[in-house]
Amino acid sequence: MKNLIVGQSGGPTAVINSSLFGVIREGMKQEKHIDHIYGMINGIEGFLKDRYMDLEKELTPEQLQCLRTTPGAFLGSCRYKLPEDLSDPVYPKLFQKFNALNIGYFFYIGGNDSMDTVSKLSRYAESHGESIRIVGIPKTIDNDLVLTDHTPGFGSAAKYVAASVAEIGIDASVYEAKSVTIIEIMGRHAGWLTAASVLARKFKEDNPVLIYLPEVPFCLENFMKDLEKAFTQRNNLVVCVSEGIHDKDGTFICEYAGEAGVDTFGHKMLTGCGKYLENYVKSHMNVKVRSVELNVNQRCSTFSQSLTDAKEASLAGSFAVSAALEGATGKMVSFVREEGPGYDLSCDLVDVNEVCNKEKPVPLNWITADGCDISDEFIAYALPLIQGNPAIPMKNGLPNYAYRK
Amino acid sequence: MKNLIVGQSGGPTAVINSSLFGVIREGMKQEKHIDHIYGMINGIEGFLKDRYMDLEKELTPEQLQCLRTTPGAFLGSCRYKLPEDLSDPVYPKLFQKFNALNIGYFFYIGGNDSMDTVSKLSRYAESHGESIRIVGIPKTIDNDLVLTDHTPGFGSAAKYVAASVAEIGIDASVYEAKSVTIIEIMGRHAGWLTAASVLARKFKEDNPVLIYLPEVPFCLENFMKDLEKAFTQRNNLVVCVSEGIHDKDGTFICEYAGEAGVDTFGHKMLTGCGKYLENYVKSHMNVKVRSVELNVNQRCSTFSQSLTDAKEASLAGSFAVSAALEGATGKMVSFVREEGPGYDLSCDLVDVNEVCNKEKPVPLNWITADGCDISDEFIAYALPLIQGNPAIPMKNGLPNYAYRK
Repeated sequence: MKNLIVGQSGGPTAVINSSLFGVIREGMKQEKHIDHIYGMINGIEGFLKDRYMDLEKELTPEQLQCLRTTPGAFLGSCRYKLPEDLSDPVYPKLFQKFNALNIGYFFYIGGNDSMDTVSKLSRYAESHGESIRIVGIPKTIDNDLVLTDHTPGFGSAAKYVAASVAEIGIDASVYEAKSVTIIEIMGRHAGWLTAASVLARKFKEDNPVLIYLPEVPFCLENFMKDLEKAFTQRNNLVVCVSEGIHDKDGTFICEYAGEAGVDTFGHKMLTGCGKYLENYVKSHMNVKVRSVELNVNQRCSTFSQSLTDAKEASLAGSFAVSAALEGATGKMVSFVREEGPGYDLSCDLVDVNEVCNKEKPVPLNWITADGCDISDEFIAYALPLIQGNPAIPMKNGLPNYAYRK
Repeated sequence: MKNLIVGQSGGPTAVINSSLFGVIREGMKQEKHIDHIYGMINGIEGFLKDRYMDLEKELTPEQLQCLRTTPGAFLGSCRYKLPEDLSDPVYPKLFQKFNALNIGYFFYIGGNDSMDTVSKLSRYAESHGESIRIVGIPKTIDNDLVLTDHTPGFGSAAKYVAASVAEIGIDASVYEAKSVTIIEIMGRHAGWLTAASVLARKFKEDNPVLIYLPEVPFCLENFMKDLEKAFTQRNNLVVCVSEGIHDKDGTFICEYAGEAGVDTFGHKMLTGCGKYLENYVKSHMNVKVRSVELNVNQRCSTFSQSLTDAKEASLAGSFAVSAALEGATGKMVSFVREEGPGYDLSCDLVDVNEVCNKEKPVPLNWITADGCDISDEFIAYALPLIQGNPAIPMKNGLPNYAYRK
């Protein structure tokens, strides 16, 4: 009988712990095949320093239950890139540690870079006759992994973005005076999350009136024209921009500000594109302007967790365990959306080497021709992913988060 | 039989519409005494332009139900200050309009400035023999109104702050590397909301490790020392600052940045104190630093609405109507917390002239002597106000907000 080890890597999401929950639950179910269920603390990086825990023994039933609605990464995370050269001594060191712990199954929950780790470890295992099975479980709010319909973490972040944008729109509409509110949303290279802001729109002329993704070059002059046109429709405008919008030369709009902004002590002031655009519009239009950076709460809000997303994240975790037991290795769990009128999702496996170090942008035909709005195809794609609210265990008026002290 | 009119004024909150709901519901109950229930659109300012609606006729039962969990100001708001001089022609103009609509009861939901409106209108009515009864219903996330235990709107904003700070703390703790996360929270003059961040702390050494309110002068030098001391306890530090922190000379910390920050086009870059402190710590300490401005979502989040706050906001609205029917005028509804071990609240009336244009700061003995933490007395005060989650009507995966198109 072999043991199982699981780790978390990269930026956290609202449901990365749901995937961890799925791995633990399935691991406990498979007690005939799996003995201990270990968790690496701070991913591969921590494991190399012998930091791990026995999840079955050390987690209380209450902690296990709370894990499902706790954001962040319960096990801690890392941004550790394994060397390209598979003859590097870190590999035998790692596998020695795996073998010392009698590990038969290795799971890594993460995004692009984490799948790179899964790829390297599985290639090393294959070429060195190591029998350990290595499977990746996708996670990223950015939704930019290829070969999967979407990624766990995106639905909850999209729901946070849509609800927050709707509420900021409500807040912005209470006064009669003309105003522009610019909302900066995460996503440096892919605009999936920013696109989700369209879900906040309740009727045709409703906010957000303008949406800009990094998939289309951004032009300040066109932006001002878009605003003027939008002002003919309504007095308070909400504009959503991806943090990664850039001009046709590839220069990020946030860099426009960073080049020259200095504070009283001469220190360079770094700000985002939202703040830059706020100042730009302020100095070009005689209207009230403000900017809101949704910031890290996008990826860690419990209250706006999507039940669909949480369930799918857990499913991805348990599917990975069953698949590994059936022999899968060098794979990533993927989501397949079945054709048809309803929303029907199933899990599959894809070659992890085909996933890592690639990025999936929003299809250009899901962005309107004028470059400042999102098409109905995206809405049909994204709407099922934000459905349902999980029951949140509460304590002292706040979500009862699971945590390692 | 007389009619009722209600308006909303000042910045919106998550539960200002619960108070509106309370007014409408009580008004409908009192059908023997109240005929029409009117709502001013954009407060006094809109009413002066004859903008109002019949809330009983024009609101569908679904809208009325959704009102309870819709943030913002359903009727629209204004920031309109009535002239100090009660012989100004705007007063007879207003009362002419009231009388034309056969208004017997006037309710204004708002903060400090709105109570100034209530004060002036009731003083004018008294001195001019107008029989209309005028009552204020408190609302402000800032919790800075005097003569009331707390204000509707504070509990939900406090819950948003506490939950968000806890989640940012979880997010910040996933990596091992030393880091500082600075969270900027609303409150220019009073630190109530920033103080609520202490509710996020799950155990003694937990984040937020440092909390700075505007009630105590802020000193950059001490701040750096506080950080260094905190780093001896843990690697990732979450620091909460009120937007209104200022030095001993009264200069806002956010002004330190605004004095010199300019972008590539020479435009002045305005940023908050959080961003300023981020840049300051970055240039003085070799650790990862980021800042998060919680921004407008603090006052308009549906998902983190406190059920206690929503119920009390509604109660304040219905109490105002009953009180006016019993003869009250020139009053504001206040909250009285009963002495004793449990949390027991009742409504009372206070002289609105004693409320307007005053501010209630956080008591200095609720701030620790070192000026960077909050005492247990505050926790005992604030904890009951964030309890309970309302059932949120949902539509397409998002809260079903009530809105005027």
